Amino acid sequence: MDRGVDRVEGIQVAYIGGGSRGWAWSFLKDLARDGQIEGHIRLYDINRPAAERNKLIGEQIMAHPEALAHWSLSVADDLASALTGADFVVISILPGTMDEMRVDVHAPERYGIWQSVGDTVGPGGFIRALRTVPMFATIAEAIRDNSPDAWVINYTNPMSVCVGTLYDVFPGIKAFGCCHEVFGAQQMLADMLKADAGIDAQRTDISVNVLGINHFTWLNRVSYGTLDLMPMFARFAQSHYESGFGEAGESWVGAFFSCNHRVKFDLFRRYGLIAAAGDRHLAEFMPPWYLRDPETVERWGFRLTPVDYRVDEQKKRDEKSLRLASGEELVTLEKSGEEGHLLMKALLGLTEMVSNVNLPNAGQIENLPRGAIVETNALFRRDSIQPVIAGAMPDNLLPLVQRHVSNQRNTIRAARTRDRALAVSTFLNDPLVTVGAEVGENLMDEMLAGTAKYHGWVDGR
Amino acid sequence: MDRGVDRVEGIQVAYIGGGSRGWAWSFLKDLARDGQIEGHIRLYDINRPAAERNKLIGEQIMAHPEALAHWSLSVADDLASALTGADFVVISILPGTMDEMRVDVHAPERYGIWQSVGDTVGPGGFIRALRTVPMFATIAEAIRDNSPDAWVINYTNPMSVCVGTLYDVFPGIKAFGCCHEVFGAQQMLADMLKADAGIDAQRTDISVNVLGINHFTWLNRVSYGTLDLMPMFARFAQSHYESGFGEAGESWVGAFFSCNHRVKFDLFRRYGLIAAAGDRHLAEFMPPWYLRDPETVERWGFRLTPVDYRVDEQKKRDEKSLRLASGEELVTLEKSGEEGHLLMKALLGLTEMVSNVNLPNAGQIENLPRGAIVETNALFRRDSIQPVIAGAMPDNLLPLVQRHVSNQRNTIRAARTRDRALAVSTFLNDPLVTVGAEVGENLMDEMLAGTAKYHGWVDGR
Amino acid sequence: MDRGVDRVEGIQVAYIGGGSRGWAWSFLKDLARDGQIEGHIRLYDINRPAAERNKLIGEQIMAHPEALAHWSLSVADDLASALTGADFVVISILPGTMDEMRVDVHAPERYGIWQSVGDTVGPGGFIRALRTVPMFATIAEAIRDNSPDAWVINYTNPMSVCVGTLYDVFPGIKAFGCCHEVFGAQQMLADMLKADAGIDAQRTDISVNVLGINHFTWLNRVSYGTLDLMPMFARFAQSHYESGFGEAGESWVGAFFSCNHRVKFDLFRRYGLIAAAGDRHLAEFMPPWYLRDPETVERWGFRLTPVDYRVDEQKKRDEKSLRLASGEELVTLEKSGEEGHLLMKALLGLTEMVSNVNLPNAGQIENLPRGAIVETNALFRRDSIQPVIAGAMPDNLLPLVQRHVSNQRNTIRAARTRDRALAVSTFLNDPLVTVGAEVGENLMDEMLAGTAKYHGWVDGR
Amino acid sequence: MDRGVDRVEGIQVAYIGGGSRGWAWSFLKDLARDGQIEGHIRLYDINRPAAERNKLIGEQIMAHPEALAHWSLSVADDLASALTGADFVVISILPGTMDEMRVDVHAPERYGIWQSVGDTVGPGGFIRALRTVPMFATIAEAIRDNSPDAWVINYTNPMSVCVGTLYDVFPGIKAFGCCHEVFGAQQMLADMLKADAGIDAQRTDISVNVLGINHFTWLNRVSYGTLDLMPMFARFAQSHYESGFGEAGESWVGAFFSCNHRVKFDLFRRYGLIAAAGDRHLAEFMPPWYLRDPETVERWGFRLTPVDYRVDEQKKRDEKSLRLASGEELVTLEKSGEEGHLLMKALLGLTEMVSNVNLPNAGQIENLPRGAIVETNALFRRDSIQPVIAGAMPDNLLPLVQRHVSNQRNTIRAARTRDRALAVSTFLNDPLVTVGAEVGENLMDEMLAGTAKYHGWVDGR
Repeated sequence: MDRGVDRVEGIQVAYIGGGSRGWAWSFLKDLARDGQIEGHIRLYDINRPAAERNKLIGEQIMAHPEALAHWSLSVADDLASALTGADFVVISILPGTMDEMRVDVHAPERYGIWQSVGDTVGPGGFIRALRTVPMFATIAEAIRDNSPDAWVINYTNPMSVCVGTLYDVFPGIKAFGCCHEVFGAQQMLADMLKADAGIDAQRTDISVNVLGINHFTWLNRVSYGTLDLMPMFARFAQSHYESGFGEAGESWVGAFFSCNHRVKFDLFRRYGLIAAAGDRHLAEFMPPWYLRDPETVERWGFRLTPVDYRVDEQKKRDEKSLRLASGEELVTLEKSGEEGHLLMKALLGLTEMVSNVNLPNAGQIENLPRGAIVETNALFRRDSIQPVIAGAMPDNLLPLVQRHVSNQRNTIRAARTRDRALAVSTFLNDPLVTVGAEVGENLMDEMLAGTAKYHGWVDGR
Repeated sequence: MDRGVDRVEGIQVAYIGGGSRGWAWSFLKDLARDGQIEGHIRLYDINRPAAERNKLIGEQIMAHPEALAHWSLSVADDLASALTGADFVVISILPGTMDEMRVDVHAPERYGIWQSVGDTVGPGGFIRALRTVPMFATIAEAIRDNSPDAWVINYTNPMSVCVGTLYDVFPGIKAFGCCHEVFGAQQMLADMLKADAGIDAQRTDISVNVLGINHFTWLNRVSYGTLDLMPMFARFAQSHYESGFGEAGESWVGAFFSCNHRVKFDLFRRYGLIAAAGDRHLAEFMPPWYLRDPETVERWGFRLTPVDYRVDEQKKRDEKSLRLASGEELVTLEKSGEEGHLLMKALLGLTEMVSNVNLPNAGQIENLPRGAIVETNALFRRDSIQPVIAGAMPDNLLPLVQRHVSNQRNTIRAARTRDRALAVSTFLNDPLVTVGAEVGENLMDEMLAGTAKYHGWVDGR
Repeated sequence: MDRGVDRVEGIQVAYIGGGSRGWAWSFLKDLARDGQIEGHIRLYDINRPAAERNKLIGEQIMAHPEALAHWSLSVADDLASALTGADFVVISILPGTMDEMRVDVHAPERYGIWQSVGDTVGPGGFIRALRTVPMFATIAEAIRDNSPDAWVINYTNPMSVCVGTLYDVFPGIKAFGCCHEVFGAQQMLADMLKADAGIDAQRTDISVNVLGINHFTWLNRVSYGTLDLMPMFARFAQSHYESGFGEAGESWVGAFFSCNHRVKFDLFRRYGLIAAAGDRHLAEFMPPWYLRDPETVERWGFRLTPVDYRVDEQKKRDEKSLRLASGEELVTLEKSGEEGHLLMKALLGLTEMVSNVNLPNAGQIENLPRGAIVETNALFRRDSIQPVIAGAMPDNLLPLVQRHVSNQRNTIRAARTRDRALAVSTFLNDPLVTVGAEVGENLMDEMLAGTAKYHGWVDGR
Repeated sequence: MDRGVDRVEGIQVAYIGGGSRGWAWSFLKDLARDGQIEGHIRLYDINRPAAERNKLIGEQIMAHPEALAHWSLSVADDLASALTGADFVVISILPGTMDEMRVDVHAPERYGIWQSVGDTVGPGGFIRALRTVPMFATIAEAIRDNSPDAWVINYTNPMSVCVGTLYDVFPGIKAFGCCHEVFGAQQMLADMLKADAGIDAQRTDISVNVLGINHFTWLNRVSYGTLDLMPMFARFAQSHYESGFGEAGESWVGAFFSCNHRVKFDLFRRYGLIAAAGDRHLAEFMPPWYLRDPETVERWGFRLTPVDYRVDEQKKRDEKSLRLASGEELVTLEKSGEEGHLLMKALLGLTEMVSNVNLPNAGQIENLPRGAIVETNALFRRDSIQPVIAGAMPDNLLPLVQRHVSNQRNTIRAARTRDRALAVSTFLNDPLVTVGAEVGENLMDEMLAGTAKYHGWVDGR
């Protein structure tokens, strides 16, 4: 097909954050490997040296002999200048530091509350949200004022709260949230196809109907070509119920991030749908069935990710970043498995694609409230994202999802209005917070105190 | 006002149940005391002797020297003949016996789950619902076939599930649920007016805007004439927070049924609205903040109602019933405080009134699902009940109410379709069931086994 | 019933407009005749001498020997000072003068389009709306800035567009629209009761369920006490179909404003509901079935109201106003039949009442869009108006009502944004505009040119 | 991509109707030209000889040397046996004969009502619907009883009413309606690209966002690759406003079916969106702006299609059918331009595609009622059609579309319940029926009398 042009140049991208994590490099590599689009990237990070380093690394990536595109890079002085003129804005920030994350994840443990990730829901996800919402409010205002027509891609967690804040502050924003957890579920199904039927399939060949909220997303129809995979998965979940099944594998999961899908199999047995995220995430959305204590977690085949491990990893990445920036270590051009650059191409009109995405509910899930940030498939076309109607959450799952949808909405409102009573009632309504009202309130206050630098609540208000 | 006629005769009432409780007598006394309506009552109870006894008692009530109306009574052989020709149907049944109620209330205690009532939500309310839904399905079919145009007044608990089943089975039914718990809240406000401002007010003079679901109903506007009572209640709840306030008093509460409103005061502090039900009911809708153990209950100023006590009371009522039926004891004609006969008069066109009622949501609460059984005010007129738009549940309360709304819907569906998985996930989603998935499932099975005579599930299916 | 206090003093009312019509006097007389409320009225009119005159007349009314309340009056210098401190705002303005009204009503006649009133829908209603919307936008902003908590009662036409503009500009406004057309329908039913059954009934004794939009309102349930009036009306409409039935009579209709209900009878035959407005209004909402030409109008038993007649009437009122102001003529204290003062008393908490009112649709009519200004019953209580759920427009009437609802919404938007294309397409979508697109556009331009002084569109833009 | 299998055999298709039109042949040729699917087709037509002839012709098509698939064919004795076992059902019937169509199209002309097609809306579309609805009710019941899981493709007009009836009768049906009118609009845009920019594009390369109802469908976003076509169309519509632009060309339009898009250009000027159907169809949905009389039609560059012409064409097709069946004339294998076989392949899982389709509104158009049959894009996948959220109808178009949506719903209800009053009010609410209530009713009765053989209304009831 001849679609007029097959290459677009002069694209302006603002990249917000990225200083402390590997996302930025992956994104830049994906761009370098793609010959159809090219332009300029403005890096902005509150940690300016990190952005400077990413610029140097990015330039090496673009200079790689196998690079098909050669984006230029610069470091922006402030948010406004990063955004002005942008066609695309990528947001990938770390809200606070590892010190705050330590509070998010580990403070609740003293109260008997265990979290495997601590960045989405649970007490940790909530406290993280309280400091993230004001940052995203600032970003949303800056986009409204400097690049209102840009497409905004968010990678930051807690995803639903971040994207929800963007729309809350600037309803006209063209923002969406990308997450690879569903890809992991597709990969598991591809692995199952290989294991059970000897078929080699790419994860992108697995058609899925996606419905739910980020990290608590569900598949009610899965197929591979003419083949319905649902009955195969039912047998598979049954036969691997006790033993679990391998590890999710692939670049998006590392050692501490893997699982053997036992939680997924148990959820399938109980609810009849395939939960499409890593077990570490799924477990946090439920009452503490899978997170009662470390032994329970062990038994269910996944791991609690200690923040110490993250600190180590970050340190390694920092060192690597220095080596890469200085040229001491050479960059490589491996694929990330992410789709961000593909979605950009579709929004430019170079292709059309259907993929899962986080967007305000405009009816794609009929029995969740309008405006809630939900994850479903959408059709990406030139300057347009249209959700595909995914249907209704089934009766048995609806209350589980609704509870988090309410909590996420209330979290945003509590954070934006500094409504103490709403913050407390929202915190207490999290399924993992089973310690009672008074104790729970104490925990919240302790966590707020421990992260006070980043959220601006004084004395828990 | 001259409204053409001021008296209606020849009214046909079918009274379903009533054999084992005092409701029937109260209702008959209210009818006897009202000179505007008269007719015939057909009593139907699966315990026919109880119905026979009620007939004799009813005849004494109607023969009381102060009676203004003299309804005739008969005992119906079956449901169909009770219903045929009825203008009104009153449903007030005991689903099962005290033996089953003992399981509902006390079986969970061995698992550390305490319930103050056990007939609405919680594990007890759920198991009670599983055996009540089929009975109400039978009644709904009988009404559809024999008296489709009758107005149907339900008093049976669990109210929301009972009324929901009626509409689920026969969508054209003209049914509504009456409950006096809101009256108790009005009375508490009247008592407050007396205590704090020296004003003598009737509970019916307290204007309230009602929104929520039965036994978990909330008031967001309360006034007495030109006086806004909300600020007065805020001070009142504050000053009585520790001590509690008296007892609700009046005929609808007895010794074990009273509370000192401390739960209500705590809920007000946390959520900003006045919970309009007895604390015993309210506590069961929340996580076990107020029901952690008997000491916690004590501290919050209400009581667990032991089934032994109910058995005693029932025995006394049975004995009294024999004395009344035989004429050994003379009937009295006191007011019940209930409104059923007044609503009947409004539906006949003799008056118009606004009162709280349980009905399928047709938009009276904008952010709860259509069709959920909700409690709000409604306008009662000739052959018409129109809900008054009550507004939206506030953000902080919404998830608490939504959770029960989902559970109630799923309870009806699980009961009607014998869907084991849905029953389990619904049971586990109750806020009081904090024992984990496996243990919870065991409890459910134990309770099903203990009440097997009445629900028809075999081996938990 | 003792509701604490039975009299409220110190009420502040802002009366906007009223200089040119009899409404102000009626309202003041109703206040004077009611002993339960009293306070101060600030009159504001862009025609200040008219307001001054009304002040003098009002003072005479309050000094009438039979007056039970004695409100003081003043003339405000500007809108802001009229509104500041107001508990109630009454809006009753004439948008433009009789010169503009002459264009509204008579310009279309040269194109073969006849209108009986020309102030609600039709080409006249539309052009009137284009000049009224900016005035109401100004008033709404002033209320937002000076008296955001006041209750706002609108009497101005086109009612739906006026109330819609208030909410569009200031969504937090507590505004509602009062109209007596439904009262006229109740009176007709009372007259029918007298004529057919010999029963003397007050119009307020006729219970009606109201649904629709102002001047195109429908009754689907009507009763008098225990008596269903619907079958009686069916016979009545049949037997008077050819001859019509008397005249609506009563103070709110004069010679040119009466009808013999033949249009109403025909609409009943076609649609099965009772249209609850004067035939002059009803006819304008339909295609030109009843307004094809003056002969058709004559045949259907109503009249075209010539603006010359209105000019004469206004002149008489002006002269009378001078005589009353000067004391040459003595004021009288007759009842108006309006309910404005009663609704004020209910909003103060002195009473509760149910009456028909124009409000944004919050679900009271389930199949009309949220936010559309609809007319249904509502419950008036202390500081609260709650619509009563009226049900759905029946299938056959729905498209007729929807068409005007869309037009009214588009009229407000076109007027506020000066969207020429939207104005044209809205004008052409009126059922009375059957002259084709080009001719219709010419008519619109001619009418805009003829009323240019008041709407600010230049050259039809 | 390897999707497991790339060919599906053994597919069972039931083809209902097709005896009298060219659709069946086109469909069979498309199947023959596609090597990926194969199976058996059961032909059913109330005119059995026509089905027999189609069987013979179909066999020649499948035996064509260039055929890649070789479907077998049989003629079914009755509807039930045609449907039993079907994976796909294709419905393409002629409701009645040319005699009835003559009444539909030409009877209104004596009343001054001109129609260019007369099969969708207008008096002709309505009367056609009255006789089609019972036929589709019969088909829906047969599908429910014999092939409830089959995918059902409807090609019959009036499309919205036909598909609506299928869902009304059997809510679980998996039916959708296919129409090529949007393809014509895409082709016009491709022609524009060629004419204005010298770009050769296929119609399938034109991305369109589709919203509206069948034959009154609108495009609010159109693009070709990275190119936004909306500004180009705005210039194009302006420059060709007076002259029109060529003819739509291509196999799906013949001489009497073409237009020069002047109506489309005028609608664009007035409403800002591209109407995506032939002008002959579009004109019928509007008031008689373009259909006042034959001269007006001429001026707007389209034609009234006389039924005599259709009779001639049918006769030619009949003759050709005899020649083809006998082998006197050889079949050819040209492409039809239709997509039915492609959608079948997507539903089998062989491909995925996005195309426009008629389905019950599940939120794909947010401001049209749920359940209304609307036309938007949808994602076709294995055993699944998911509408893509198309957005809201713009304010100015909404009332035009809503009016027909209401009429279509009321047409189905009137036809199914034989509700005379609803039929009359629906007939009178059509934009082309501007003759007043009495005259309109006479016309309806005359048309009912003239088509009495097929609809079963006796004396207009």
